[in-house]
Amino acid sequence: MVMRKIKIVTIGGGSSYTPELVEGLIKRKNEIDIGELWLVDIQEGKEKLEIVGAMVKRMVKAAGLDWKVNLTVDRREALPGADYVTTQFRVGSLNARIRDERIPLSHGMIGQETNGAGGIFKAFRTIPVILDIIKDMKELCPNAWLVNFTNPSGMVTEAVIKYGKWEKTVGLCNVPIRYEKMSYEVMGLDEANQELYFKFAGLNHFHWHRVWNRKGEEVTKYLIEEIYKPENKGKYVGMKNIKDIPFNYEQIADLGMLPCSYHRYYYITDEMLKDELKEYSNHETRGEQVKKTEAELFELYKDPQLDYKPEQLSKRGGAYYSDVACEVICSIQNDKRVNMVVSTVNNGTIIDLPYDCVVEVSSMITSHGPEPINWGSFEAGIRGPLQLQKSFEQCTVEAAVTGDYGKALQAFTMNPLILKGKITKDLLNEMLIANKAYLPQFQQKIQELEAAKLNF
Amino acid sequence: MVMRKIKIVTIGGGSSYTPELVEGLIKRKNEIDIGELWLVDIQEGKEKLEIVGAMVKRMVKAAGLDWKVNLTVDRREALPGADYVTTQFRVGSLNARIRDERIPLSHGMIGQETNGAGGIFKAFRTIPVILDIIKDMKELCPNAWLVNFTNPSGMVTEAVIKYGKWEKTVGLCNVPIRYEKMSYEVMGLDEANQELYFKFAGLNHFHWHRVWNRKGEEVTKYLIEEIYKPENKGKYVGMKNIKDIPFNYEQIADLGMLPCSYHRYYYITDEMLKDELKEYSNHETRGEQVKKTEAELFELYKDPQLDYKPEQLSKRGGAYYSDVACEVICSIQNDKRVNMVVSTVNNGTIIDLPYDCVVEVSSMITSHGPEPINWGSFEAGIRGPLQLQKSFEQCTVEAAVTGDYGKALQAFTMNPLILKGKITKDLLNEMLIANKAYLPQFQQKIQELEAAKLNF
Amino acid sequence: MVMRKIKIVTIGGGSSYTPELVEGLIKRKNEIDIGELWLVDIQEGKEKLEIVGAMVKRMVKAAGLDWKVNLTVDRREALPGADYVTTQFRVGSLNARIRDERIPLSHGMIGQETNGAGGIFKAFRTIPVILDIIKDMKELCPNAWLVNFTNPSGMVTEAVIKYGKWEKTVGLCNVPIRYEKMSYEVMGLDEANQELYFKFAGLNHFHWHRVWNRKGEEVTKYLIEEIYKPENKGKYVGMKNIKDIPFNYEQIADLGMLPCSYHRYYYITDEMLKDELKEYSNHETRGEQVKKTEAELFELYKDPQLDYKPEQLSKRGGAYYSDVACEVICSIQNDKRVNMVVSTVNNGTIIDLPYDCVVEVSSMITSHGPEPINWGSFEAGIRGPLQLQKSFEQCTVEAAVTGDYGKALQAFTMNPLILKGKITKDLLNEMLIANKAYLPQFQQKIQELEAAKLNF
Amino acid sequence: MVMRKIKIVTIGGGSSYTPELVEGLIKRKNEIDIGELWLVDIQEGKEKLEIVGAMVKRMVKAAGLDWKVNLTVDRREALPGADYVTTQFRVGSLNARIRDERIPLSHGMIGQETNGAGGIFKAFRTIPVILDIIKDMKELCPNAWLVNFTNPSGMVTEAVIKYGKWEKTVGLCNVPIRYEKMSYEVMGLDEANQELYFKFAGLNHFHWHRVWNRKGEEVTKYLIEEIYKPENKGKYVGMKNIKDIPFNYEQIADLGMLPCSYHRYYYITDEMLKDELKEYSNHETRGEQVKKTEAELFELYKDPQLDYKPEQLSKRGGAYYSDVACEVICSIQNDKRVNMVVSTVNNGTIIDLPYDCVVEVSSMITSHGPEPINWGSFEAGIRGPLQLQKSFEQCTVEAAVTGDYGKALQAFTMNPLILKGKITKDLLNEMLIANKAYLPQFQQKIQELEAAKLNF
Repeated sequence: MVMRKIKIVTIGGGSSYTPELVEGLIKRKNEIDIGELWLVDIQEGKEKLEIVGAMVKRMVKAAGLDWKVNLTVDRREALPGADYVTTQFRVGSLNARIRDERIPLSHGMIGQETNGAGGIFKAFRTIPVILDIIKDMKELCPNAWLVNFTNPSGMVTEAVIKYGKWEKTVGLCNVPIRYEKMSYEVMGLDEANQELYFKFAGLNHFHWHRVWNRKGEEVTKYLIEEIYKPENKGKYVGMKNIKDIPFNYEQIADLGMLPCSYHRYYYITDEMLKDELKEYSNHETRGEQVKKTEAELFELYKDPQLDYKPEQLSKRGGAYYSDVACEVICSIQNDKRVNMVVSTVNNGTIIDLPYDCVVEVSSMITSHGPEPINWGSFEAGIRGPLQLQKSFEQCTVEAAVTGDYGKALQAFTMNPLILKGKITKDLLNEMLIANKAYLPQFQQKIQELEAAKLNF
Repeated sequence: MVMRKIKIVTIGGGSSYTPELVEGLIKRKNEIDIGELWLVDIQEGKEKLEIVGAMVKRMVKAAGLDWKVNLTVDRREALPGADYVTTQFRVGSLNARIRDERIPLSHGMIGQETNGAGGIFKAFRTIPVILDIIKDMKELCPNAWLVNFTNPSGMVTEAVIKYGKWEKTVGLCNVPIRYEKMSYEVMGLDEANQELYFKFAGLNHFHWHRVWNRKGEEVTKYLIEEIYKPENKGKYVGMKNIKDIPFNYEQIADLGMLPCSYHRYYYITDEMLKDELKEYSNHETRGEQVKKTEAELFELYKDPQLDYKPEQLSKRGGAYYSDVACEVICSIQNDKRVNMVVSTVNNGTIIDLPYDCVVEVSSMITSHGPEPINWGSFEAGIRGPLQLQKSFEQCTVEAAVTGDYGKALQAFTMNPLILKGKITKDLLNEMLIANKAYLPQFQQKIQELEAAKLNF
Repeated sequence: MVMRKIKIVTIGGGSSYTPELVEGLIKRKNEIDIGELWLVDIQEGKEKLEIVGAMVKRMVKAAGLDWKVNLTVDRREALPGADYVTTQFRVGSLNARIRDERIPLSHGMIGQETNGAGGIFKAFRTIPVILDIIKDMKELCPNAWLVNFTNPSGMVTEAVIKYGKWEKTVGLCNVPIRYEKMSYEVMGLDEANQELYFKFAGLNHFHWHRVWNRKGEEVTKYLIEEIYKPENKGKYVGMKNIKDIPFNYEQIADLGMLPCSYHRYYYITDEMLKDELKEYSNHETRGEQVKKTEAELFELYKDPQLDYKPEQLSKRGGAYYSDVACEVICSIQNDKRVNMVVSTVNNGTIIDLPYDCVVEVSSMITSHGPEPINWGSFEAGIRGPLQLQKSFEQCTVEAAVTGDYGKALQAFTMNPLILKGKITKDLLNEMLIANKAYLPQFQQKIQELEAAKLNF
Repeated sequence: MVMRKIKIVTIGGGSSYTPELVEGLIKRKNEIDIGELWLVDIQEGKEKLEIVGAMVKRMVKAAGLDWKVNLTVDRREALPGADYVTTQFRVGSLNARIRDERIPLSHGMIGQETNGAGGIFKAFRTIPVILDIIKDMKELCPNAWLVNFTNPSGMVTEAVIKYGKWEKTVGLCNVPIRYEKMSYEVMGLDEANQELYFKFAGLNHFHWHRVWNRKGEEVTKYLIEEIYKPENKGKYVGMKNIKDIPFNYEQIADLGMLPCSYHRYYYITDEMLKDELKEYSNHETRGEQVKKTEAELFELYKDPQLDYKPEQLSKRGGAYYSDVACEVICSIQNDKRVNMVVSTVNNGTIIDLPYDCVVEVSSMITSHGPEPINWGSFEAGIRGPLQLQKSFEQCTVEAAVTGDYGKALQAFTMNPLILKGKITKDLLNEMLIANKAYLPQFQQKIQELEAAKLNF
């Protein structure tokens, strides 16, 4: 197959993740012929960008490739003519994440950087920025694909497609691939041969899956038993960033499908909260841990001898995400029609959810984008919580776009991880004020809140 | 219009409510010509039945009517040829309700006799009994209408229609009429002239409504402001049995529709829980209060001079329910086509919910039953919680019918008032054991649980 | 109830129908207090407008009413501050209708002024005009209700609501009321007492209905047998303007619902076509007959003594339409909540059809407009043809709005009364050219067609 | 991959098609390891079965394979332990097909062996037989896959899944693959490299498709122009068995998708009918032609030297069907996840059609069966006719299963190729009588019809 040289732009290129992404691209050098790779970050991230950029250049060189690696803090310099724009930026840096986690915990609630109050505020900070990026893309690279892994990935993808009207968007996450690997491990089968068939459906960090073997037998029930039966506790490990506290087995068995790690926040909130409160008092919330790991990683990246992804990066969370991201690019570029789990427009794939919303589903990735495998309908035990979650997401995205306070409060009220009552509003207000620097859409309300505070 | 004499059978006839029902029937003596009125109760309730029955006979006599009032503890004696069977029984008596409320509170959760863990167990106790009643009705009065006000009214109605296949069923509740009266009060308009037009939709104890005036203007927004703006606190009173703790105003305003009292359990759970915990420690939970009121009422009912509904009954809760119940019977009997809010089959009235489920919606009550006014779709802020609630109800009803423990645990896990984690299962188990006498469908599981307890 | 004086504007006021409309208004003088009645027509219709206008003034005077009756050929003079705008105009006059019927018949097809090729062209001529009227209404009477009886009523109503964005619109037709009267006749019951309950659903001139009696028994099956069994042929008469040629009884019985007269065009096309071809060769198509009747009517109307609706008008077709139109106005004005069949937005009333399309369904007419009674889903035998018809309507309306030739040809191809093949296109082209004067949206295509013709 | 020996049973094994199927199996000998191949036919077809069977044995031997080829007229002998049952039988033989075509044509209607009156009767004859086969399969080979190519393939597949409750069913047709090949031809691209991506959706013989190239560009519009623009007439050939009479180009262009050959019956009925009437008068209807071809083929098959598929078979129609059939078996057997177009359960793939109906859509063929690629919704121009067609199919299948005459007449009335009126019923009656020997479900009605005929 003849390949043309492609241009990839990575927004948030100064992230500690970047070496993993680049490793993934290098691994696929025979499938995608990269001409230019642009790493973009903001002025405040310039130092990190330069450290990571230098390291990336070393990696590319070590691989014997002639890719032009460019660094910039002006995304408009990078975007012209891009084929793929990948996004992995974090508005407000890890400090914002730490606030997202610690403020809710200070009120006895799980913050959770994607699904709880923290996730709502991550959406509030991120969506205005990504919509600005889309504006630039419309002007500078109107044919590019947007490959988004900025969290909350599902909501950000929905904002981009529904409000930004950028259809060539694929939202990604590394959770599904982690669960595929776990199934192979449990079954003792070889992943390389694709001996299992997976069907995922739901939303980002809120999906379920079924599994079949080569003989056409569904092995979902078997996997539920093996992984979640009380007597098998600890035998298999899910996401590294989420504690493997046991589910209530009979409830999982009743679902008839395999949950993901994030369901722990909803299905066993009590234990998860207790665990996080312990981290909170030890200043070891996930954000705080990642901050430490990142500092270490950047120290490593500074080593002018290092020209490969260091082992320590795997502790960072987000493992396999390069596999997912690079594979999507590869599959679009080469029309590989690989079966992957992505966030994309529903169009009736899950008929329990609105036609025009974004869902996370198994899809065939073609050169014209994801073609979802049809799912149909869920049973009540999954359907209701899923529908609530999507409605919650839609209120969150709408509030993020419009800056409507009532809608933000509605999103808070709908979220199962947030306590309900005056506390809901108090938490929202406190977080609005704490995120003042990153929420242009809520400025008027924040000023009112601050004024009211002074008056007390 | 020529009327034929009709036969009404009231199951749970020994209830303290009965005089209100009979008062409603007497008030409509010109519209429905009653031949026989049968009050049915179980053996354990015989004493109460006799007290109430004697009182009812006095009321009928005082009204100068020749209705034959019959009392029995054998429903099969009462049912033959019935035109209307009304149900208001309580399996396990008020003691069961007290347990439904106190056990969850002992674990820091709202029990709530219709929507929380208490409501789930009320469904578990009631549904097997009502399905037995339906079996008798199929044999003894195959043309009768079932008018159900046994709580949880929506779930019981769904069980009767979906599992009992008894289509001639109307589920009732007195909450909507209370809110209609409140709107008239706020607007300063006359209810008798029907100067407002109401549209309700949702589920029993989980519905929203819109209101229009005679000029065709929607006054919903105005009513939200008048009733729920913080400065108007205390101005208007909702259901007597639910504390008027203020909602978060901006969240209610964002709904764009009027909520019902029961939404307080979901929207301001924190305050409601604190209030109930206080009642719990004072042994003043709703069930305990009602038990006292009932004892007083029965003392009054014993008075051989009393031949009218005593004032005190209005404290009992359930006010206006006779208006609703008697008006439904009247409207069916006379094809009055009155616009009322009832629990009936969805058939697409609310397209966000399953086609074959039971919803509570404004309907025209005809001689062939309720014809719901079309509703369509809800916005995300209402849609998600409503879809969750219906899925929760469907799991609950399925567990009630099948006795499936996993399904019961799923229902518990889906309910927003129940804490999630090991505590979910502990609570379910404790309540199963406490309700052992009333749960034939769960006997095997209860025995296992008891055995496991002994082994500890 | 206190009434305020209202202003009614009738577009197409020079129609021979107008006296019937005015008779209906006079009959309801105690319910609607009219201040002004404006009759609007176009310059070409001025003579007729003056004849009818004079007659209407005599009728109003004879009724002892002080309504101000105004005539104008400038609708912008009439519209300011209107409360109700009724539309009954006919673009291209009866000559256009005659062409609509005769051109298709000349090719061996039923033209049909609402459902066939004729109906498509009536939509093509009417929709641009009504969208212009809406523009004026937005400016001059933004609170008015549009009460449309211009045919094809369903498609015109859909265009007004979907493309004109005028929500305060009710589409009307006299077919349902005709069938209600027929049911009363068959059952030997009194219409005044509303002893039957009707539920209609479908599209304009393409609906089915079910009927119940006071006892709550469905009498639909009985009515199908009585009206359509071969042995009862001729016993009951449907619409005067449609021949009572018998259906295939077993097919109607299988529907399980009562059809309307217009279904003859689809269910027994062969006989209907033969009958129309006879009329065609005798120059007695419906349009030609109506033209004669109209000429006679206008002669009568000229009589300065005539101050009441003459008997002959009933031959005109459209009987009872004043009952429908005036009753809708009355019910909106007084919030009467009457149960009527109107064209209104679906919103899921019939879940087999698009959510945002216009359907013709039984509705409660309130002061804020029609509230449809929920219908749900149809069985396959009705569902398929109904879905086809709505899709056909949507293509027709889109073609009428955009002037897209391919879309017009698609609408022709979808219509069951039009033959398929080269003939489809030939017919479309011939009718486009014949309607040149009334189709601004298709001007370019028509010029191309004319040029191509010259070149042959 | 280790393969186990599989057993294939072909019902209708005496068909002239069989050598093509066997050729396809031989071509895939490295992918599917066949142990036994059973050819089953009925007693009347024994002679043909033996001719074909001998020929098949020669083919297998010539390929150097050790498959056991067995012939039987008792399917219960063949079925035990089967892995795949393929069905290609024809109830009533080609004589029935000739009647299916000629009787409608004698009344001026297209008979059409799958979509018209002929297709309805083919369904009536076939469905009772295939439901009997399913009964045997439940008993004798409960794990087998049913691979159906008996026409009308979509309706037969729906009957098997919905009424026979045999979920392991795949319905096949060779039309989609023919159109894929045509696209490759038009684009000048290589099929082997799968350089185009196809998405088909609709029903058997009633589907549309879109096409993309390797760069991710949709080429559908280009293909429509190339294939259907009047100036390109005759450049490309569709199905051999359907005349390439030109569509109305603007109508096809408006669809925005590529039609299939069978759409000619609906979109250009007039020309198709004229053409068939010519064939009718020359005794050259499709059935009559095929009968001749078959006779010639069987003469060839008798040649004891012939051990390969003769060239003449390609004239027979149904070309490439072996590719489709064998590829499905291969893909199930080896979990190849090939993208193919099959008839399978909708489950919301096309949301315009009922959830539980059978549709023909692009699917990934896995070892647990087809996983359809999600489609979503169609535009009005396709949606309406498609919904009508599915409703028609559902009435036909229901009539075939129940023998309900009203339902059969409804199906006839809904079919666009059948004239409407008394003629509809006359045609139905005549065909019922002509098919008396093959319609056990309609026996009573047929006897009534015959009795009524005698009485005239």
